[in-house]
Amino acid sequence: MVSAKLRAAGLNDEKLSTGVSILEERSFDWGTDPEQGTVPDVVVWPESTADVVTIMETASEHGIPVTPYAAGTSLEGNPVPAEGGICLDVSRMDSIVDVRPDDFQIDVQPGVFGSAVDEAVNDHGLFFPPLPSSGKISTIGGMVANDASGMQTVKYGEIHDWVLRIKAVLADGTVVETGSRAAKTSSGYNLMDLLVGSEGTLGVMTEITLELAGIPKQIHGGRVIFQDRTAASAAVSDVIQSGVDVAKIELIDALSAEITNAYLDADFPDAPMMFVEFHAEHNIESEIEFFRSIVSEHGAVEIEISESEEGMAELWEIREEMAEALEPYDPDLTPLTPGDVTVPMSQFADLMAHIGTLEDEHDLLIPCFGHAGDGNIHYTVMVDSDDPEAYERGKAVYNEIVRYAIEQGGTATGEHGIGVGKRELLSEEHTEGTVDLMQRVKHAFDPDDILNPGKMFPEES
Amino acid sequence: MVSAKLRAAGLNDEKLSTGVSILEERSFDWGTDPEQGTVPDVVVWPESTADVVTIMETASEHGIPVTPYAAGTSLEGNPVPAEGGICLDVSRMDSIVDVRPDDFQIDVQPGVFGSAVDEAVNDHGLFFPPLPSSGKISTIGGMVANDASGMQTVKYGEIHDWVLRIKAVLADGTVVETGSRAAKTSSGYNLMDLLVGSEGTLGVMTEITLELAGIPKQIHGGRVIFQDRTAASAAVSDVIQSGVDVAKIELIDALSAEITNAYLDADFPDAPMMFVEFHAEHNIESEIEFFRSIVSEHGAVEIEISESEEGMAELWEIREEMAEALEPYDPDLTPLTPGDVTVPMSQFADLMAHIGTLEDEHDLLIPCFGHAGDGNIHYTVMVDSDDPEAYERGKAVYNEIVRYAIEQGGTATGEHGIGVGKRELLSEEHTEGTVDLMQRVKHAFDPDDILNPGKMFPEES
Repeated sequence: MVSAKLRAAGLNDEKLSTGVSILEERSFDWGTDPEQGTVPDVVVWPESTADVVTIMETASEHGIPVTPYAAGTSLEGNPVPAEGGICLDVSRMDSIVDVRPDDFQIDVQPGVFGSAVDEAVNDHGLFFPPLPSSGKISTIGGMVANDASGMQTVKYGEIHDWVLRIKAVLADGTVVETGSRAAKTSSGYNLMDLLVGSEGTLGVMTEITLELAGIPKQIHGGRVIFQDRTAASAAVSDVIQSGVDVAKIELIDALSAEITNAYLDADFPDAPMMFVEFHAEHNIESEIEFFRSIVSEHGAVEIEISESEEGMAELWEIREEMAEALEPYDPDLTPLTPGDVTVPMSQFADLMAHIGTLEDEHDLLIPCFGHAGDGNIHYTVMVDSDDPEAYERGKAVYNEIVRYAIEQGGTATGEHGIGVGKRELLSEEHTEGTVDLMQRVKHAFDPDDILNPGKMFPEES
Repeated sequence: MVSAKLRAAGLNDEKLSTGVSILEERSFDWGTDPEQGTVPDVVVWPESTADVVTIMETASEHGIPVTPYAAGTSLEGNPVPAEGGICLDVSRMDSIVDVRPDDFQIDVQPGVFGSAVDEAVNDHGLFFPPLPSSGKISTIGGMVANDASGMQTVKYGEIHDWVLRIKAVLADGTVVETGSRAAKTSSGYNLMDLLVGSEGTLGVMTEITLELAGIPKQIHGGRVIFQDRTAASAAVSDVIQSGVDVAKIELIDALSAEITNAYLDADFPDAPMMFVEFHAEHNIESEIEFFRSIVSEHGAVEIEISESEEGMAELWEIREEMAEALEPYDPDLTPLTPGDVTVPMSQFADLMAHIGTLEDEHDLLIPCFGHAGDGNIHYTVMVDSDDPEAYERGKAVYNEIVRYAIEQGGTATGEHGIGVGKRELLSEEHTEGTVDLMQRVKHAFDPDDILNPGKMFPEES
C-alpha cells in the first residue's frame, strides 16, 4: 500500500488521506473529462521541503507516480494523476516566507493563492502584475507550473517574467535551487525557466521568489462596443501595433456577451466588446486619447472609459466569471474545454475570421473571449449534448483552429499548458527532434518517470 | 586531420582555414589569459543551417570538439576552444532574415552585430532595448549565448526577455526549433531559455527571433557627480527602490573617472559619477524632477541632464570605452578580468563598501563601474605587473568579492557568463545537486560532450 510506505517513511496520519471522496476530488480539474484522469491511491499534504523530500525519496524507492496538485483550477488535467499513485497536495504549504519591499521581492510557498501575494504587498505600494483572472482561487505553484499569464500580461509579461528563484525537490529527493535573488544572472544553465511551465513533470517546487512592481498612480478603464467581431479584432491589432500602452485589452465577442448576460443577469448589448485598462504615472489621458482615436477608426459604437474604481471592479469581476457562464448557458449544449491558441498580432484578425468561418461551416456556436492584446483567444466549441458523435466533430473543429494557429506561427497554448488534453498537439507544434529533446530533458530530471507521468508528451512517443 | 574530415563531408576550402594566424586569433577572447585557451585545429565558417548540420554530424561521428565563436568580445573565454578541435565561426551567418514591424519582431542569423539590428528597425520606429555597451562590436549570437544585458536592462530587461524563438543544431546534427513567434506560449518545456545563456555548450544557434520595442518619444540624459562612492551607491539604491523610471543608471567611481580621463583625454572631475538616461512618452520632466530630488538628498554635487543628443552620445561613447581604458592606464599595473557580480538592490551599497574595505586592506586599486541599477558592478583588480605573486593575491581578492556577493543573495555573474574563467565559482554559487542537474541536462543535449567542452563546470566535477 502506498500510504503504508509513506507512513513508514515518517509521514503521520494528519498528512495523509485515503478517504474516497478526497481521492476522487483530485481525479479531475476544471477542464478535462473525468474519464481522462485516474483516482490517486493517497493524498499527502507536505508541510515543508523536508516532507516533500521524504515523499519523493519514498516514491523514488518504490517507483510510485507522484502528481503535484494545488487548487485544481487547471483546464488540461495538468495536476490530475494519469496513473494513480500519490497526489502531492501543496495546499498546506501556503506561507508567505518573506517580503522584501526594498528589493521588490516576495518569497512564497507554492500553495499561496495569487491574490494573497497582492494582499501581502499592496500596503508597500507593490503588486504582482501577471496574476491570472483566476488569481483569487488559483495558487502561485499552479501558475508557475503552467507558466500562466493574465489580463495584464499585455503590458507586464507572463508569470516567468516575474519569477526570480525556485527551490524544488527532484524525483529522487534532491533539493535544487535555481535562479537568484539578484535582478539578473548568467551563472550556469537557466534551469529555473525550465521548471516554470514544466507542469510538475520535472520537480516539486517548494519555495518561489517573485518580483513585484510598483502600483501605478493612475488607473483608468472601461469598455468599448463594436459593430462586429471583425472590426473589434482589427481594432485590437491596431491598438497593439500602434504601441498604445494598454495594461489590459480583452476581447469579448457578441455570443460571449449574450452568455454572460444570461448567467450574471447583466445587460451588455449583444455586440463584441473590448474591456480595457490603462496604467500610468501621469498623463494617462493622452494615452487614452490615442486609444480612442484608434478604436474610433474601427467604428467603435460606444466608448466608456473612466477612473471609477467600482466601474472597473465590476467589469473585471464579470470578465473573471465568463468561463463559468458557459456550462449553464444551454442544457442542450456542452462546452468543450476552451482553446488557448495564441498567434502573432499580425495574424490575430485572420484567426478570428477563420473561427467565424468554421462556426458557419459546421453550424456550431463558438463563443470567444480572451487576452486579445497578446494574440491569445479562448474559444469554446459548444456541442450538442444528446448527439454522441457531436463531441468528436466538435473536437475536430477545435483541433483545426489549433492547426491554423500553428501554421500562422502561433502556439497551441498561450497559458493553460499541455497537461493530458493537448498531448497530441505537442507534436503538431514542435518537430520530432524538439519533442525528443524535451523527453531527454525529462529523463535527465526524472529517469524513472515518476513525476506526473502520462502528461505533456504524445502517447506513442 | 579534422579539416580533411570536414572537406570529405562536403565543406569546401572557402569555408575552412587552418592558417596559423587565423587559428591563433581564435585561441583567446577579450578577457581570459591566452594560456587558458587552446588553438583550434581548424576554423570553419558555415553559411547556413545545413552547413552547421554537416559540421555537427562530422564532429559527432569522429568525437571532435566544436566551439562556437562569433566576435570574440567575451570576457571569460566562453568561445575559446579548451580542447582544440573545430572553431565554428558564425561570422558569415550575418543576415537579417526577416523584419516584421507589425509584430515588433526580427529574425536574424547569429553573426549579425547588435547595432545592425537597431539599424534595420530604427526606420520603423523600433529598437532592440537590451543591447550591451559592446553592441557595435559584438553579435546577437554571442549575446544570446551569454544571456548578456546592457545599460538599458534596468528598464527593459535582459537579452532573454527579448528572445522569442531559437533555431539550433544539436551536437548530433539534429535541428530543433524552440519558442514561438506568438507573444507567449506554454507549449512543452521552455528549451529556448535553456539555450539562452548556455554558452555554446548545448547547441549551435542558427536563427533567432528577437522582440523589439517602440522608440520612446522623449529621451533625456546626463550625469550626476557625488562626493564619495558611498553616497553615489546609496543614491543608486534609493533611485531604484523609489521606483524612478530610469532607462540607464551607471555608476562610475572616482578611480574609473581618472582612468577614463587619462585614456580619452576627458576632463571628468576625479569623483564618483552616475550616468543616467530617461525614456518616456510624455512628461519626462516630472520623472527627472523626482530623480533630482532623490540624488540631491544624497548630496549630489552637480546634476547635468538635458535632451542634447550630442551630449548623451558623447557620454555613452565614453562609457562604452571604459573597459578599454584599464589596460593602458599604468604600465606597472595589470588589470585582471573584470568581475561581474550582481546583488539584490538592498545589498548594493554594502557591496561597494566591502570592495572599498578590501581595496584598503590589500592596498590595491580596484576601479568599479557598471550597471548599478541592476545591482551589477564590474570591478577590476589591478595587480603589480612585476610581482609574480601579485596575480594570485589579486585573484584571491577578486574571488572574495564574488563570495561576498553570493552570501548576500547575489550571483557570480550578471551578464558575462561562466566560460572557463568562472568554472570553479559555479560550485560556490550553486549546490552540488544543482550543478549535478546542470550536467545531466548537458548530457541530455550532448551525450559525447563535443560542444564547447571544458567550460561551465568545475574541473573536478
